[in-house]
Amino acid sequence: MTRQELVAQIKAKQSFLCVGLDTDLEKIPAHLLDTEDPVFEFNKEIIDATKDYCVAYKPNIAFYECLGTKGWESLRKTLEYIPDEIFTIADAKRGDIGNTSKYYARTFFEYLNFDAVTIAPYMGEDSITPFLEFKDKWVIMLALTSNKGALDFQFMTDAKGEELYKKVLKKSSKWGSPENLMYVVGATRAEGIGEVRKIVPEHFFLVPGVGAQGGSMEDVANYGWNSDCGLLVNSSRQILYASNGTDFAAKAREEAKKLQAEMQQILQKKGM
Amino acid sequence: MTRQELVAQIKAKQSFLCVGLDTDLEKIPAHLLDTEDPVFEFNKEIIDATKDYCVAYKPNIAFYECLGTKGWESLRKTLEYIPDEIFTIADAKRGDIGNTSKYYARTFFEYLNFDAVTIAPYMGEDSITPFLEFKDKWVIMLALTSNKGALDFQFMTDAKGEELYKKVLKKSSKWGSPENLMYVVGATRAEGIGEVRKIVPEHFFLVPGVGAQGGSMEDVANYGWNSDCGLLVNSSRQILYASNGTDFAAKAREEAKKLQAEMQQILQKKGM
Repeated sequence: MTRQELVAQIKAKQSFLCVGLDTDLEKIPAHLLDTEDPVFEFNKEIIDATKDYCVAYKPNIAFYECLGTKGWESLRKTLEYIPDEIFTIADAKRGDIGNTSKYYARTFFEYLNFDAVTIAPYMGEDSITPFLEFKDKWVIMLALTSNKGALDFQFMTDAKGEELYKKVLKKSSKWGSPENLMYVVGATRAEGIGEVRKIVPEHFFLVPGVGAQGGSMEDVANYGWNSDCGLLVNSSRQILYASNGTDFAAKAREEAKKLQAEMQQILQKKGM
Repeated sequence: MTRQELVAQIKAKQSFLCVGLDTDLEKIPAHLLDTEDPVFEFNKEIIDATKDYCVAYKPNIAFYECLGTKGWESLRKTLEYIPDEIFTIADAKRGDIGNTSKYYARTFFEYLNFDAVTIAPYMGEDSITPFLEFKDKWVIMLALTSNKGALDFQFMTDAKGEELYKKVLKKSSKWGSPENLMYVVGATRAEGIGEVRKIVPEHFFLVPGVGAQGGSMEDVANYGWNSDCGLLVNSSRQILYASNGTDFAAKAREEAKKLQAEMQQILQKKGM
């Protein structure tokens, strides 16, 4: 998917919501466990219920991998089921030497046909460029993550006081462009979002951490906004597990609608 | 597997060789492509041919994932086929927020029953500790990688001149112990291996980059040795693709034997 198509979708739906499909057999409603493919059944209902209110879906691969071949099959079926106009992100946090990253890229961009994949920066340029060679596909690089462990290394400073996450932004933004590279920037570090925005004014951010992890939508919009919106705000548990009864899809729809309404207010205020 | 069992195996086999099972459909002998599961057939013959000369096998997950459910099935069968006394490493380079890393840990330690998994450090402590909670299982953390991109971030220095990879070693060595934590240290950075050894004298290193990538076995032993050997030196392509004819397994055995003989000389010189 091109950036232009993504931005058009944000305007049309008045939403920059990404629904995280972190589908966990231990958390989905009990009545689904008797179906042949409970993970896919759950995802199907969640997608039907939320697709009017979101512009992206982001399955975290860990939840599928742990089910082995069955999980990969659920993931493949889920990807096929997501409407074509919606952006799809493999939250995989991969990264390996160039020769190997090429195979990860094939997995997510060709075999599963995702639009984007999340990548960890530790191994540097040749671990990332193989992903950037696919037309209309995206790398979403970890910059400032939403978890506590982000403080361990991402804020390490050099002699000039510049943090590691800023170096990651500066270097990597030369490897790709705002047309094929986004960044993960956690909502739990609102001022950090502003710092990131200064360094990469044009890139889109994938923002986890609103809701369950404590980040605020208003802060994210205040610090992260750019002229194309530039934000995909993710929500997973708040939507997926709004109810664990037979009404789970209806409740998920309500939550997604609530978040979309908040986003619409922001988009209108910003004149989009 | 415990450290004691690993060290006993190194002594018994007079080898610290890890065979990297980076099995690539584009590189395996043509006569295998007609079998029902070419990847598993290839691995089976490679394992039979090399198991006397190595102490560990390390499939890189990228090569299996790119084949979808079929690849995961080949991987599962390969893991079952590897003799119990041989150490197994999932080269997966995973790492996510704690809640999610738990699922990756289950995939590799429970579903596939690997002894160890490689992990990227960027997301910090809570992305790693879920892997350390499994008894007799190992985390192998990226410290100093063998690829060119290692220079992009791993050598970033703070105001005191200390590099990122050293910070990774110092912090992470407090999260685990030499009984459940190893480090990836590339053979292409021989002096770096010495630097790493100073900081973590007791930990094992998984060392890629000997052979195809240009690192030297002698340097690795000189810089990386500790009283328990402390090294697992990986070789992938040099062994796997020594021939692409019907004699591939025999040729792989020769290459593995050659490496083992080199290692035996080192072990004897060191009195092990």
